[in-house]
Amino acid sequence: MSPRRARAASEGGPAGDRRALARAITAVETGADGADELLRAAFPRTGHVPIVGIAGPLGVGKSSLINLLVGHLRDMGRTVGVIAVDPSSPFSGGSVLGDRIRFDRPAADAGFFFRSMASRGAPGGIAGTTRDVARLLEAAGFSVILVETVGSGQVDVAIRDVATTRVVVLVPHLGDEVQTLKAGLFEIADVFCVNKSDLPGADVAERDLAEVASMGPAPDGWRPRIVRTSTLAPSGVPELWRAIEAHERFSADSPGRLADRRRRLEEEIVGRVRDLVAEEAATRLRTEPRLRRLVDRVVAHELDPRTAAERLLAEGRR
Amino acid sequence: MSPRRARAASEGGPAGDRRALARAITAVETGADGADELLRAAFPRTGHVPIVGIAGPLGVGKSSLINLLVGHLRDMGRTVGVIAVDPSSPFSGGSVLGDRIRFDRPAADAGFFFRSMASRGAPGGIAGTTRDVARLLEAAGFSVILVETVGSGQVDVAIRDVATTRVVVLVPHLGDEVQTLKAGLFEIADVFCVNKSDLPGADVAERDLAEVASMGPAPDGWRPRIVRTSTLAPSGVPELWRAIEAHERFSADSPGRLADRRRRLEEEIVGRVRDLVAEEAATRLRTEPRLRRLVDRVVAHELDPRTAAERLLAEGRR
Repeated sequence: MSPRRARAASEGGPAGDRRALARAITAVETGADGADELLRAAFPRTGHVPIVGIAGPLGVGKSSLINLLVGHLRDMGRTVGVIAVDPSSPFSGGSVLGDRIRFDRPAADAGFFFRSMASRGAPGGIAGTTRDVARLLEAAGFSVILVETVGSGQVDVAIRDVATTRVVVLVPHLGDEVQTLKAGLFEIADVFCVNKSDLPGADVAERDLAEVASMGPAPDGWRPRIVRTSTLAPSGVPELWRAIEAHERFSADSPGRLADRRRRLEEEIVGRVRDLVAEEAATRLRTEPRLRRLVDRVVAHELDPRTAAERLLAEGRR
Repeated sequence: MSPRRARAASEGGPAGDRRALARAITAVETGADGADELLRAAFPRTGHVPIVGIAGPLGVGKSSLINLLVGHLRDMGRTVGVIAVDPSSPFSGGSVLGDRIRFDRPAADAGFFFRSMASRGAPGGIAGTTRDVARLLEAAGFSVILVETVGSGQVDVAIRDVATTRVVVLVPHLGDEVQTLKAGLFEIADVFCVNKSDLPGADVAERDLAEVASMGPAPDGWRPRIVRTSTLAPSGVPELWRAIEAHERFSADSPGRLADRRRRLEEEIVGRVRDLVAEEAATRLRTEPRLRRLVDRVVAHELDPRTAAERLLAEGRR
């Protein structure tokens, strides 16, 4: 057992207290008291494992693929945490994925942890929560984190900054999607996975994707890999993992990687500044008489909200 | 011509400069320089006209209905601005509505203005932009603002705070939607519109909705109205407008209305405080040596982002 693994286990890691981990995740998801402290404590033990975003439209078999990928990783002795980001359905607000994902893991497998998270609620919030939950999983000792998202524009865009490697799963005959890719409307992935590659048309899909991938390397110089997989008669899963690992190795040496990580963390700090200030401003607007009078004038449409915001900030700095 | 109308016309209103209005909307949509000043100038002339949110799933005929409603309002001598919030498609990120909406208005009708806005980009931003564009339209003199949204959970929720009356459009045999309504998963509307009411099943749909509406009045005491419309052999449109007006009159006298408006404006002020502070914090993190060293420590995972945010705020207040 590596020192890292041993430490993780002693702190509720893969071999440790799963219920404590589940409770910590719930605390972070719900913003419960104590969540901040959990995250503060977890942070120094994070930043080292691959966080693999796996996106793609409904029906391409992402869940079966992830199930096989988990099996492959466990066979290799890697511990795996899976986060499924479950978008709310457009009309009902209800769950799209539900409990759709089934893993062929023994209940006693301490090296595997799965959590489904609903994206309903604050649209901007799901990426931050996913990032925080991924940190809890890493701090608990899991050595690979997989994040599944349904290819829903907004959620995907939000998640992409959390992942260190982004996989997009497609199937043969997703003609429109390939056109979308060619048109550059879809963010380029690090790895494209043509799943259900036993269906006719896989060659065409692979060729189309190769064309997309050849449209020029990403800003960091990485050229997207294309992998064919099948979950029916399982094939291609080790190749998929090797492509992911190749990207991880590439970006570890990439000069852009540190700059990118720095940018993400700067954005996170700014986000937390924003939240702290907003919380304080909301309280002050309701409680300080001077600021209540400021709101009165806005309600009367005598003063516009932006000017009121500037005055509130000026008040706070006096 | 009323003084209000006359003033509006002289400032690029319904009879005024449409190109200036279109440019102002683009400036607000893109956050261009000068957008703030346009909104500051518009704000004192806003807060008085109905802003009618019209939501519902794709395929229920919202666009045809809005076209008829616009015709009805124009026949009554009302000027109308329409904002269509065009959600990005889940997978491609592209437009769902496209230029799907067609209005039977003469090109020279200065009392009608239509604008389609893409919701792609910042998920949290579309509601604020819609609110700001509605203000520009009101300040330009339009006396009714209609906001069409496809019933996409997140966008709808974001838009609902912008509207003064919320209409949900359904069609007969939307069985699941009614079940969703009954289960309380769908926010209650002020007016339910059963469109395509010449189809069989309209009676059942109306009865089901009546049951939903009778599940108790909204917190402000309003009981949702149910209106049947058809766009094939146009019917029900005047009744739809009367139901909307009834809600507008009701809420004008409602004690909850002022509190609600105050809450929305407080939230807007807090949002603007947040944006101002975030902008400043982002600049400082990149430019002040002390803060750059703070980020260095976060990048090294020695210090967590929340603690860094607290220190940045403490620095700013010294």
